[in-house]
Amino acid sequence: MLSFQEKLERYADLLVRIGVNLQAGGKLQLNTPLEAAPLARLIVRKAYEAGARAVSVRYDDPQLTRILFETAPEEALEYAPEWQVQETLHKISDGYAFLSIAGNDPDLLSGLDGERIARRSKALAQANRPVAEHMGSFAVNWSIGAMPVPSWARKVFPDLSEEEAIARLWDAIFTVTRADRPDPVGAWRAHTEALAHRREYLNQRRYEALHFRGPGTDLTVGLANPHVWVGGAWPAQNGIPGVPNLPTDEVFTAPHRERVNGTVRATKPLSVRGTLIDGIEVRFQDGQVVEARANSGEATLHSLLDTDEGARRLGEVALVAASAPVARTGLLFYNTLFDENAASHIALGHAYAFNVEGGQGAMGAAGANDSLIHVDWMIGSAEVDVDGVTADGARESVMRGGEWTF
Amino acid sequence: MLSFQEKLERYADLLVRIGVNLQAGGKLQLNTPLEAAPLARLIVRKAYEAGARAVSVRYDDPQLTRILFETAPEEALEYAPEWQVQETLHKISDGYAFLSIAGNDPDLLSGLDGERIARRSKALAQANRPVAEHMGSFAVNWSIGAMPVPSWARKVFPDLSEEEAIARLWDAIFTVTRADRPDPVGAWRAHTEALAHRREYLNQRRYEALHFRGPGTDLTVGLANPHVWVGGAWPAQNGIPGVPNLPTDEVFTAPHRERVNGTVRATKPLSVRGTLIDGIEVRFQDGQVVEARANSGEATLHSLLDTDEGARRLGEVALVAASAPVARTGLLFYNTLFDENAASHIALGHAYAFNVEGGQGAMGAAGANDSLIHVDWMIGSAEVDVDGVTADGARESVMRGGEWTF
Repeated sequence: MLSFQEKLERYADLLVRIGVNLQAGGKLQLNTPLEAAPLARLIVRKAYEAGARAVSVRYDDPQLTRILFETAPEEALEYAPEWQVQETLHKISDGYAFLSIAGNDPDLLSGLDGERIARRSKALAQANRPVAEHMGSFAVNWSIGAMPVPSWARKVFPDLSEEEAIARLWDAIFTVTRADRPDPVGAWRAHTEALAHRREYLNQRRYEALHFRGPGTDLTVGLANPHVWVGGAWPAQNGIPGVPNLPTDEVFTAPHRERVNGTVRATKPLSVRGTLIDGIEVRFQDGQVVEARANSGEATLHSLLDTDEGARRLGEVALVAASAPVARTGLLFYNTLFDENAASHIALGHAYAFNVEGGQGAMGAAGANDSLIHVDWMIGSAEVDVDGVTADGARESVMRGGEWTF
Repeated sequence: MLSFQEKLERYADLLVRIGVNLQAGGKLQLNTPLEAAPLARLIVRKAYEAGARAVSVRYDDPQLTRILFETAPEEALEYAPEWQVQETLHKISDGYAFLSIAGNDPDLLSGLDGERIARRSKALAQANRPVAEHMGSFAVNWSIGAMPVPSWARKVFPDLSEEEAIARLWDAIFTVTRADRPDPVGAWRAHTEALAHRREYLNQRRYEALHFRGPGTDLTVGLANPHVWVGGAWPAQNGIPGVPNLPTDEVFTAPHRERVNGTVRATKPLSVRGTLIDGIEVRFQDGQVVEARANSGEATLHSLLDTDEGARRLGEVALVAASAPVARTGLLFYNTLFDENAASHIALGHAYAFNVEGGQGAMGAAGANDSLIHVDWMIGSAEVDVDGVTADGARESVMRGGEWTF
């Protein structure tokens, strides 16, 4: 039986060795919330032990974001300093790997002015666009982990004490990231090989579309042409394979921006911009969201859709077995890093260049979508079937009752 | 009787309005240790309330410095990324004001390899040189405040519980920074006027040297020619007056790098690079330290002196009344921001451009010193007299028994 500290160290080790796969002499940029300092320090130690030449840590204080919205003058909301983007671009060209720790209060921005939040989000996304393009091309290795901060743990386990909630959330994270296994690195190698099998099968099938069928859902998602399925571990442009998310149980590709039709009902709530959007139902026509409603958080949903023209179209379709480890926990994590690995999902907004054959320059011709946003939401469950539709209109089973059929 | 929270808010307000004197539409860079987050958040709020257009906060985690020295490969010690300096230079040219919060564990680096620390300190100082020159020219407003983190408070009050120690250290900080006064901003205006009177008197006298006499001390400090005394509030190059340290009770100028002779005994221990140097005794000849000893921390003292040629010469001489508020607390703060305002002091290392008439370009000809380091140590007390020596060799009283005589 491993102690908590042993599991935490294994988790830090996984993020460094499997997530960004840091090489001796490599450089690491770690972005982390203040409250994740204990994990951040372990990661820094593991990075130096792996022979890192430079480790740079940026601590983010989510409270400052709240203070900004509460007190800053209007002009401050749209001020996104150029040098921040320049620094990151500089680090990308300098070969840094990027590791981020998720772990914010899901209710951080509740009660604040949604228009101010939308304006700020858009300004930052615009400024950050060159960075997002490099990351979306997997120009350098990047990965995301998580640390249960108290506010987040209380949200996931509202009936437990803070201490118990944090312990339970850690347990769940260790389980779904395999940090509690006897040989976590070996377990990850086996897992990414299994995902590679799914990925390669789908790449070989070259479907024109996927068709999702389930309660409230009858959705055809046309795929970019030529598209590329990715998932698990794959090489960044520098040739070093890495795993962009821990956990990860998805294989995913880029939809065609104009070939999505039908209706879809979300199977889990979506936590975004500090707000919970529950009961999403959307109708697509020729790739575009033409109707959208939600039981709660509908204003935030509409604000997302109004970001730009591409925000009403899809940038990702991902397949996840309903029996994936995150799903088996039975938890809603209120955090996309986890929740998107509990169910098949789609994302409103921009597509990733690595999901299109030919990369960034080929995206437009392939029909891949562009937008300032990329917001995943869950549409899969044990009640949802997925078919692949071939170029000649034939249908092949991909998932039945939420499970892979190949 | 003000509550703790009221005093804390007044302190944050003083740092923003008196320290960096942030203007509406201005921009602020705040550098702060993680543990000072509660003060940092108040400062950000005050800055936005003052109409700041941008507030950027960099949280520093001192533990990461310790981890670096414990685990990083040798090459990481000398790696000082260019882009960090570029970012700061960019912000300087963009008109940012810079506010730093001091509050580290004085024993942070105890027990670590002094050579590794010296190598890293030097590499960072070299990389940061262009920034230091701008700051030393008061190109933009900058200031320093402090927050009692537990390790620091326990060091100052080793016999108290952590909670009591923190409360006592806050009390001391509020007292010496006037945050507990009914009208702190008004009190600061009066105080900086009093310092301006000292500064202007000394500038008008144009002494060739100062002579310090006391137990173990018989030291003649020749002054740069032409030198400038500064202290209290004075305008940055942008014309906006600010106060670079809170508290501040010193008026100071640049010594002549070749005209310091005699012996001097430190009147307080010096906390530097995570080590306490106690009982410093030094002999100067023609500006240079030719003998140096200490009762404890002597290796660190020698390592400092060996940084570069200028590290053995003086870059600052400062006069502080022995009855100044910090001295009256009777505390050793283990932090230069406070301790240097308890006693007259000198600094090994580089001089500031604002202490020489004509600024940066005139420093060499005026005899101002250059080095990668700048380390203040206390040589004044109620037993120390200071004379001004005029160009024709006449002596005038400046301080008797540690108190001003004009």
